[in-house]
Amino acid sequence: MTERKKYNVAVVGATGAVGKKILETLEKKDFPIENLKLLSSSRSAGTKMKFNGKVYTVEEAKPERFEGIDIALFSAGGSVSKALAHEAVAKGAVVVDNTSAFRMEHGVPLVVPEVNEADIKEHKGIIANPNCSTIQMVAALKPIQDKFDLKRVIVSTYQAVSGAGAEAVEELKDQSQAFLNGEDLTSELLPVKGEDKHYPIAFNALPQIDVFQENGYTFEEMKMINETKKILHTQELSVAATCVRLPFFTSHAESVYIEVGQDNVTVEDLHKLLEEAPGITLMDDPANQVYPTPLDAAGHPDVFVGRIRRDLDQGNGFHMWVVSDNLLKGAAWNSVQIAESLINHNWL
Amino acid sequence: MTERKKYNVAVVGATGAVGKKILETLEKKDFPIENLKLLSSSRSAGTKMKFNGKVYTVEEAKPERFEGIDIALFSAGGSVSKALAHEAVAKGAVVVDNTSAFRMEHGVPLVVPEVNEADIKEHKGIIANPNCSTIQMVAALKPIQDKFDLKRVIVSTYQAVSGAGAEAVEELKDQSQAFLNGEDLTSELLPVKGEDKHYPIAFNALPQIDVFQENGYTFEEMKMINETKKILHTQELSVAATCVRLPFFTSHAESVYIEVGQDNVTVEDLHKLLEEAPGITLMDDPANQVYPTPLDAAGHPDVFVGRIRRDLDQGNGFHMWVVSDNLLKGAAWNSVQIAESLINHNWL
Repeated sequence: MTERKKYNVAVVGATGAVGKKILETLEKKDFPIENLKLLSSSRSAGTKMKFNGKVYTVEEAKPERFEGIDIALFSAGGSVSKALAHEAVAKGAVVVDNTSAFRMEHGVPLVVPEVNEADIKEHKGIIANPNCSTIQMVAALKPIQDKFDLKRVIVSTYQAVSGAGAEAVEELKDQSQAFLNGEDLTSELLPVKGEDKHYPIAFNALPQIDVFQENGYTFEEMKMINETKKILHTQELSVAATCVRLPFFTSHAESVYIEVGQDNVTVEDLHKLLEEAPGITLMDDPANQVYPTPLDAAGHPDVFVGRIRRDLDQGNGFHMWVVSDNLLKGAAWNSVQIAESLINHNWL
Repeated sequence: MTERKKYNVAVVGATGAVGKKILETLEKKDFPIENLKLLSSSRSAGTKMKFNGKVYTVEEAKPERFEGIDIALFSAGGSVSKALAHEAVAKGAVVVDNTSAFRMEHGVPLVVPEVNEADIKEHKGIIANPNCSTIQMVAALKPIQDKFDLKRVIVSTYQAVSGAGAEAVEELKDQSQAFLNGEDLTSELLPVKGEDKHYPIAFNALPQIDVFQENGYTFEEMKMINETKKILHTQELSVAATCVRLPFFTSHAESVYIEVGQDNVTVEDLHKLLEEAPGITLMDDPANQVYPTPLDAAGHPDVFVGRIRRDLDQGNGFHMWVVSDNLLKGAAWNSVQIAESLINHNWL
């Protein structure tokens, strides 16, 4: 038996919400690591973190840190990726980037391994991890697209605060406690850090995730629309999205309406298809009140699908409810899956 | 100047969440009341309640209580309405019923005054108040239907726990505090009282409101679909709904997709139309992060509309975000508006 090859891995943004989940996932999947380098902003440099029982000191992310690195997992915000990803590639690393910095760039594969793994081999040093809300939706849609053709998607999202980072989690906690105490709520972060206005998220719903574009859609909505078309390799697909931030901590849920290109597709056909689909867990038994919820999905890497039913007017239309842990399949888990594909297929 | 005629009014379910809001609304609108009778279950009978500074004792709801009553506002659950509404009518009262008991019954007007006030005059003693999530949606859709024709509606809802009654409000409070304390959550009520399974609502999302029907839709979803067609007087309209209960106390929000029957309709056309529409407040200025949220809408009788934007693929398709206080326009306010129409038009 030959020894498994091991790799030098850097995690950029190691102290963040997603960074921590990347480390947990690397441990859980027993990723073959020779040397691990934990990188962060200068602010968090010096932090001690444990990985597989060993203590690591987080270092400030700088170009020279990528010397000798095989795989760099970036999750420290778009500006860090823009500043350092090409530097890492120049030093010989392959970058799996969890930010929106390069997702729509021509020549950068945008990958959900269950959906378009083969795109990875076209990489020129950077592979982009899609937006969390996009990943779980396309994972559920891909088997349907392949078997029954897909014409149209209209999604309304129910998104957790952890998608806006650890500070947003704290803001929801603090505001919730203040509300229950009958105190005034302080809003300093959501809906978008750095924007002019902030609204309370506790016991509320905010129809803004990321900044508004000129066409009236938010950037989050445009990410879902454009990324879905790129990942599914179809510019003809109609995709519309409304993205809403809600007062829960983990997992995004999505109310998804689709129209397929074939007639006579049944709910049973979709059940059978999704039951066998990789990375999908079907939870759909209304008679027994079985459907996924964000709390159920938290901590699990799968995409959960339920409430599949035929549209009452449109014969080729179906509604479904898709839930997944936004920090796992929506971020860390998918990034590490891409890294696994890179080494398993020798696509480094 | 002649003195304004006054009426004998009964409120059935006076001690409930909606009953209290009905009393507040009658006070606020200075409804011309000669005698007021507050009725409830035997359990709540004897409760003292204040109305316009005077203390009333709640009596058990029984047929003989409706003797001499002109208008009876029912909001004590479907079974109470089924047991007592016809008895009240037999004693000469006109019933405005806030439950689902008679809504789809032929000959019972189902009314949102801004939308189909004239239907009231066809009543045979009972007028039904629509479901809360339906009312706010049809209020926003009616002006669009009239001016641009309406072909299709797909709605995903974001609904407050107060729609499930005062106990659900307590359950959300208790669970939220337990969660923040790191304690286990106890779920005894939601998603549906009396159902086999209960799921936590705190920091979660439940894609079930009311019981499931054989077609895989919940009763709440079928209410939205069927009531919308009845109120808008069009069986041809395509309507689809996904209803989701969320962890906030007051106001329902709705992500609504519509297709109109005319080409070349613009967002500006819809803005202009809704700005002038009765009972609607337009809050739609993305550049300044202006859109309605449930917390903003709470306590206000209007229906708030924002985030209107054209679908990027379907030229006659538009998305919008509709928010309203589910206990006011969604229940109490609309019921009292119906009672006002009855007296103003002499339709008693």
